[in-house]
Amino acid sequence: MQKPLILVTNDDGITAPGIRKLTEIMNSIGEVVVVAPNSPQSGKGHAITINSTLSLEEIFLDGPQRDFSCNGTPVDCVKIALDKVLTRKPDLVVSGINHGANSSINVIYSGTMSAAVEAGVEGLPAIGFSLCDFAYEADFSQAEEFIKKITLNALNNPMPKGIVLNVNIPKLNKEEIKGIKICRQANAKWEESFDERINPHGKKYYWLTGYFNNMDEGDDADETALANGFISIVPVKFDLTAHEYIKDLEKTMVI
Amino acid sequence: MQKPLILVTNDDGITAPGIRKLTEIMNSIGEVVVVAPNSPQSGKGHAITINSTLSLEEIFLDGPQRDFSCNGTPVDCVKIALDKVLTRKPDLVVSGINHGANSSINVIYSGTMSAAVEAGVEGLPAIGFSLCDFAYEADFSQAEEFIKKITLNALNNPMPKGIVLNVNIPKLNKEEIKGIKICRQANAKWEESFDERINPHGKKYYWLTGYFNNMDEGDDADETALANGFISIVPVKFDLTAHEYIKDLEKTMVI
Repeated sequence: MQKPLILVTNDDGITAPGIRKLTEIMNSIGEVVVVAPNSPQSGKGHAITINSTLSLEEIFLDGPQRDFSCNGTPVDCVKIALDKVLTRKPDLVVSGINHGANSSINVIYSGTMSAAVEAGVEGLPAIGFSLCDFAYEADFSQAEEFIKKITLNALNNPMPKGIVLNVNIPKLNKEEIKGIKICRQANAKWEESFDERINPHGKKYYWLTGYFNNMDEGDDADETALANGFISIVPVKFDLTAHEYIKDLEKTMVI
Repeated sequence: MQKPLILVTNDDGITAPGIRKLTEIMNSIGEVVVVAPNSPQSGKGHAITINSTLSLEEIFLDGPQRDFSCNGTPVDCVKIALDKVLTRKPDLVVSGINHGANSSINVIYSGTMSAAVEAGVEGLPAIGFSLCDFAYEADFSQAEEFIKKITLNALNNPMPKGIVLNVNIPKLNKEEIKGIKICRQANAKWEESFDERINPHGKKYYWLTGYFNNMDEGDDADETALANGFISIVPVKFDLTAHEYIKDLEKTMVI
């Protein structure tokens, strides 16, 4: 039987420890091709490159997989992989392991999750993996066994087209992780607070900063699961329609 | 009575004819502050700027509004406007008028709509307006009356927090427009096809191109409404959870 073809990408860049660990795990499951950004692309959301050009280079890193480095966004990487690198449709697209959480509202800012969502748009099964530890030297080995099991499970239990998984792993030792919980995206947001500074030429400039505000204590919310020591898995789709509000809007939006 | 405070932004840049027309329309409704990108930001999706700094400059354009130009993405513009420019919460955030359609799947790539969605995350009512005409010199005047009516209607009929409107206007003369339809996002996608070229130094590079593939003929889909000469309005939310799949995933995702 042919091994499953797995496309790996991320938003922290192709040399980040998180994607190297994910590649190693996927090598134990299937034939792996990595197409990932050549520089950090955190917070790039679903951005695509339309006003400038893209480069794509094969590079040679340890392991049996092939690695391609692209100067675009995570979504660009998925698109160019499907059009220019892979000779058949991948059986799975995985993104990550992200250095830092992509739970709750972060799903819309995250390049890691946007790559997975783009795979969903293409009708491919996809999973974004994130570890709730922003450190470059984060310990991804604790998550290895869970990531392998979740991946095998997703390969063996096909999801409906257009649904992808957002997997967040708490920063805990393996034996402290209580299991997995299927969740919904928590209602949370970043309260922005720009750090205003003066440059050497006397002009103001700003750094985006802020704090995370979780407004959701629901048992079924991903933030709750993570806080309680569980891995959270949110099924994610790309239909942004507020279907439940269509009828009401039809009544009020009369022009 | 205090006039409503309206924040205006876009993704085509602060000098684009689309945002100048939208600003003119909003000036007839309320007190207007424009905070918009200083360069084209089409396709930037929900990107935010975290690895570099932002500038913000007041510039002086025709009209009673105040105008601020920012070097960030449309979502950055909304965030910095709320934190650093506006002294009170706006009553409405409007984005556009985009030069080109943001119907169906385009909602996730669109900087225009991501700005509106970010306002939704902030709990503010918001509307993204797009004209189905990519031309710089597109004729926005045909849409003026509809945009004003839709805006007044949204101000008079508060939407639930977190829901924003995606308004697309067909490229037709005013008298040809048949009315408005409340719709869902059509199931459609871009079939990518990268244009491979060779640079003067012999190296390959790529332009993202593709064609639009509408796979949805539903009467309630935005693409159908537009094709039939209606303005489409899709209520949009930022919860990406596939709620309908949670129960099934709980059964299959056992690790």
